[in-house]
Formats: sequence, C-alpha cells, structure tokens
Amino acid sequence: MIASDATPEQIRAACRSGALQGATSGLALGYVQTNLVILPRAEAFDFLLFCQRNPKPCPLIEVLDAGAIEPRCAPGADLRHDLPGYRVYEAGELVAEPGDVAPLWRDDLVSFLIGCSFSFEAALMRAGIRLRHVDEARNVAMYLTNRDCIPAGRFAGRLVVSMRPIKAHQVALAVEVSARYPDVHGAPVHIGAPEALGIDDLARPDFGEAVAILPDEVPVFWACGVTPQAVMRASRAPFCITHIPGRMFVTDRPEPAV
Amino acid sequence: MIASDATPEQIRAACRSGALQGATSGLALGYVQTNLVILPRAEAFDFLLFCQRNPKPCPLIEVLDAGAIEPRCAPGADLRHDLPGYRVYEAGELVAEPGDVAPLWRDDLVSFLIGCSFSFEAALMRAGIRLRHVDEARNVAMYLTNRDCIPAGRFAGRLVVSMRPIKAHQVALAVEVSARYPDVHGAPVHIGAPEALGIDDLARPDFGEAVAILPDEVPVFWACGVTPQAVMRASRAPFCITHIPGRMFVTDRPEPAV
Repeated sequence: MIASDATPEQIRAACRSGALQGATSGLALGYVQTNLVILPRAEAFDFLLFCQRNPKPCPLIEVLDAGAIEPRCAPGADLRHDLPGYRVYEAGELVAEPGDVAPLWRDDLVSFLIGCSFSFEAALMRAGIRLRHVDEARNVAMYLTNRDCIPAGRFAGRLVVSMRPIKAHQVALAVEVSARYPDVHGAPVHIGAPEALGIDDLARPDFGEAVAILPDEVPVFWACGVTPQAVMRASRAPFCITHIPGRMFVTDRPEPAV
Repeated sequence: MIASDATPEQIRAACRSGALQGATSGLALGYVQTNLVILPRAEAFDFLLFCQRNPKPCPLIEVLDAGAIEPRCAPGADLRHDLPGYRVYEAGELVAEPGDVAPLWRDDLVSFLIGCSFSFEAALMRAGIRLRHVDEARNVAMYLTNRDCIPAGRFAGRLVVSMRPIKAHQVALAVEVSARYPDVHGAPVHIGAPEALGIDDLARPDFGEAVAILPDEVPVFWACGVTPQAVMRASRAPFCITHIPGRMFVTDRPEPAV
C-alpha cells in the first residue's frame, strides 16, 4: 500500500521494487504524471511529427535522447523500471505486459512522455466539479472515435477520447478550467452528441470503465493520451513499449499553477 | 511595389515572380508569417526534438513531410519559390542567398515553419505600445546571448533574442499581451539588464538594426526565430536552407484572435 502523501521519488521506487503495480491516480497529487511511448530511433521522427501535428491527444512533456532513460522532469528516475507496468507491442499487436522493460532495452530507443489528464482533473475538482469515475474509484471511460488524427509518416489512426459526465450548468466552467492546461489535453474536443463522434453506446467504452450519466448531465469528451496506443495498433508499428492505461509515470514536475 | 492590402496568395506570387525580394513586415497584416528551416531527413529528428525542447525561440507552426513543398497553412504555395529570399548553409557556413531554391530541392528535405514575432508586434501596437523599429522602418535589433539552448542530437547553440525598447509603465502590458501568443515566442525571456544576457553594447546588434533607447524606456528581450540560424552555424549542420531574416513566409492562417 502506497501512502497518499508519498513523494514522486518514493512512488517510482515502489514501482521499481514491484511494490506498486496498480493505478497511479490519486497518488503524488500536485505532480505531473505522464503517458509513455517508447519507439526505435528509426520511427522516432515520424512519431514526434505525429505529436506535433496532434497536440490535443499527444501533448509532449518531454522527449529523451535515443537510449536515455533518465528524464529531465524526474532526476534519478529510470524509465525502464519506474512505471507500475508496461505494454509491449510488436507489429501493432500487444505481446506482453511486463512490470519492467530493462531486458528489452536497446540504445536506439526513444522515450516520449505525454501529458495525462490527471492534471486537469485535479483542477476541475478544485473548481467544484465532481468527477464520477473519481468518486467511484474507476478508471475513466475512453472511446475510439471516428475522427482521424493528422497522419505523419507511418503513423495514422483515430482519436481516442475520455468522457466525463458534467452537470449542464458546469460544462462552461469545465471548458474554461481545462483550457488552461494545454499541456494536458486542454479544452474538450466535443461536448454532447456522442453519435457524432461515432460512439454508439456510452455504456460500452473501448478502454477504461463506464459510468452513469444522469439526466442533468452532458457527456464531455477530451482528447486522450491513449490515442498513441490506438495509433500503434492501427499503424502496425514494428516495436513499441507503452505504459498500461491508468498506470502512469510520476514526474517531479509540479502541476502548473494556473 | 506590393500593395499593403495584397493577400497572402498575391504576396507569395510576387515572391515567385521575383517582384518581391525585400522584407515582408507590414504586408498581409492579420496573417501569420513564419521563419523557415529546411533540413535533410537525416537531421530532421534532431531538429524537431530541438524545437520541442526550445519552444520559446522555435515555436512550430507546421512541419511538412519529407519532400513536401505545399504547407497546410498555405494551400497552393510552394516553399521552393514563395519566399522573398533564401540562405543556404553548408557545414555551418553561409554559401549562397538565392531568390529560389528549386534547383537545390531534394525529396529528402523536411521544411519547418517557425512562428515569427510580427504576430505579437501587431498585438502590442493594438494595445497602444509603440515599437521604434516599426516607426523607423528598420529591421528589429537581434543579439546572440550567452544563454545555451537545450541541445538535441547534433544541434546546440545559444539563444538569439530580439530587443524592443518599451516605456517603463508599459512593460507589464507588453508581457501580458505577448504572453497570449505562445506560438510566436510568447512572453519576453528577459527584461532589462542586457549585460546579464552577455550583451555588452545594445548599439551593436548581431543581426538587424540598432534603435535608440530613451531614458524612460527599458530594453525588453524576446526569444527570436533567428536562433535556428545561429544553431546551424554553431552545429556545423551539413546542409540547411533558411529564409533571410525579415523576409518571411506569408501563410493563409489568420492571426490568432486573443
């Protein structure tokens, strides 16, 4: 059990020792957490370009040099060990979910740290907006949409969104607050009308867990950092390592104070 | 002579025909203009990473696919012809300033469009801030500082800043207004104290033209899109094409309304 006041360094140490293998939501509050994508150098330009062209789902917090394992945003960390769990994709297929990727490490691997919605969720809650998946201790509901990302080289695929039911009178506030966090997906991409995004049934998310939507609530959709994983599958990337959704890399960077 | 109300498309056509070979400041007001850097695909990942790590001097407006010449932000344009003039660097040395780079074009060249301060200058003037270099129809004064950019791969070098004298009572306003334009260098990087940036003599800029600083004014320094040219020199990049400072690429993208 990880103490709720554990520091980012303590959380990373718990990942490294195997003591923490679960979700990181609610931990290290006040510090930025990130999604992770690791690709060979040969694919890194195309993916960096993909992120530049699709900043809403892929806001870059940091990109490491090829072979580097210690991010500037977390001195002393080692990206091969310091997440609760990893996914390994080969030719777009999920082939393993190891707790450590040191045995797979190569000097040509480039690590991308991508902003995570935990940052703006904390801000939404400070603004008085209740988040049902937090109240119910579930993973947020995520959906593969019908909206194409802008492709870059070999990488193409559709946008993944996260959905949070928001009281109708607080939807504008949720937009205002999240818009202040462009590094973590920013303002919603879509409000209401899930069918226009190609989502037939909100009760059946493609990732995460469904939550109820009450009569005075509107489903609000934000671009989601799981998009790269959908893109890796769609693009049949030869080799890729990611985090497991919800089990993020915890940095030493304080949340932006906006 | 180009009409001051010429459209971006008309300005690009004038560049293509050779009718416009001079500066683009004051033209196509209300449309985004950009710096240009063109590099071989082999160096493109390192430079894209450099831009990601140094967003103040290198805010990316668009990065084209290798070989592509028509940006999304200017349909119908051709980056090989549509700037007033180009600089060609080999091994970090300036070797030519042609009016057209079609004869040098290769299918492996990647074009980077980088935000230009003209956008925030228009906003400063709308806010009631006089800009002396505009009043005097000079190129803005630019200085090579003692501040290192964050390196990426082969690319390293020092930050170049532009300087504008601002009335002391308007410095805070200038910060507020320019901060709204993160895509075009954003807020200043330094206010006053030029010696702390390693600038010994404001009357001798490294690029552009000097302007007077009056007793009630403070020199305010913004990160500058000429930084990549200093970096190309310092890094001895094998081959690079850029714009000529002040002679920018004019896009069809309206200035952000903020």
